[in-house]
Amino acid sequence: MKTSLAKVNAILIADTPEHFVTRKVSSGYLEFGGMRGDRHFGITRPSDSRQPMFPKGTEIFNRRQVTIVSMEDCEKIAEGLGVECISPEWLGANLFISGFPELTKLTMGSRILFPSGAGLICMGENLPCTYPGEEIQKHYQHHPKLASRFVSAGYKRRGIVCLVERPGEIFEGDEIQILINDFMNPMQ
Amino acid sequence: MKTSLAKVNAILIADTPEHFVTRKVSSGYLEFGGMRGDRHFGITRPSDSRQPMFPKGTEIFNRRQVTIVSMEDCEKIAEGLGVECISPEWLGANLFISGFPELTKLTMGSRILFPSGAGLICMGENLPCTYPGEEIQKHYQHHPKLASRFVSAGYKRRGIVCLVERPGEIFEGDEIQILINDFMNPMQ
Repeated sequence: MKTSLAKVNAILIADTPEHFVTRKVSSGYLEFGGMRGDRHFGITRPSDSRQPMFPKGTEIFNRRQVTIVSMEDCEKIAEGLGVECISPEWLGANLFISGFPELTKLTMGSRILFPSGAGLICMGENLPCTYPGEEIQKHYQHHPKLASRFVSAGYKRRGIVCLVERPGEIFEGDEIQILINDFMNPMQ
Repeated sequence: MKTSLAKVNAILIADTPEHFVTRKVSSGYLEFGGMRGDRHFGITRPSDSRQPMFPKGTEIFNRRQVTIVSMEDCEKIAEGLGVECISPEWLGANLFISGFPELTKLTMGSRILFPSGAGLICMGENLPCTYPGEEIQKHYQHHPKLASRFVSAGYKRRGIVCLVERPGEIFEGDEIQILINDFMNPMQ
């Protein structure tokens, strides 16, 4: 098992029911089910188009409790779109980290540990959807077709989804440990 | 995404608090947290020696809700130990399936769907522990050192652990669909 270190540059929450865009907060509380007060919080959630094996709206277990993007991936998306920057808010991310550029490739089952003892488990890549592209377009109105171009610019750069393994407080500036799951020698 | 079919040969439950050994039942009910009445049921569980990153006994999310072994893997374990057969009860399994020999290699995030609509998500290989070896030894007292030999005979043949994605009834004889997660083109 390989361990890496990274830094929490920002903690973000989507606490207005009508929008997926997040806003920065200085700290947050992870509990079983996600981040307290966030729109993705819940042990279960209704299935959507990402789970075509279930009728849409079926109550299923929520593996999309907390989403994370890396500063390095956001820079690459911005470069791909030819815009100045991509804010984690526009992607609806809950955590914005730096120092671990390969975040989107982090293997399922990998752990992220915070100084408070709180812990997340990676449930894999965040699959693209169209909302963030539309949000990016609003901020760069003179750039054509950002909404549709985001799908390829964001490919394998959209960060990860996680579930809460152990509750606890998290803070902006936290140094986090990333324990990378190696399938040849897996963790449990 | 590749899909395979397999058959549920037996459903098993550990419903006596003092022992991990399971017993056959003709049907079961999967709910969020695991199989109703089973000792591994729970949205959370205390951490053990498999999670050395947490103090032992810490309340963590339970990814070990339902365990599955394959008939084919049990046959290989029996062959490796030089005994007639290995019963799924002795391994503490909840499901005993056939027709999918590579069960232990099933990728995390793969789905198992039942005719009732119930669904499981694979959380990876079931890492070896010593109890099943001791149980096997009890049944073959004339064979030496089965308890310690089980660790290598069971390597990569111990089946998988799962969490319940969608509740529902399951029955002995169910034909199940296995949707194999492909990390190059992942599911969510």
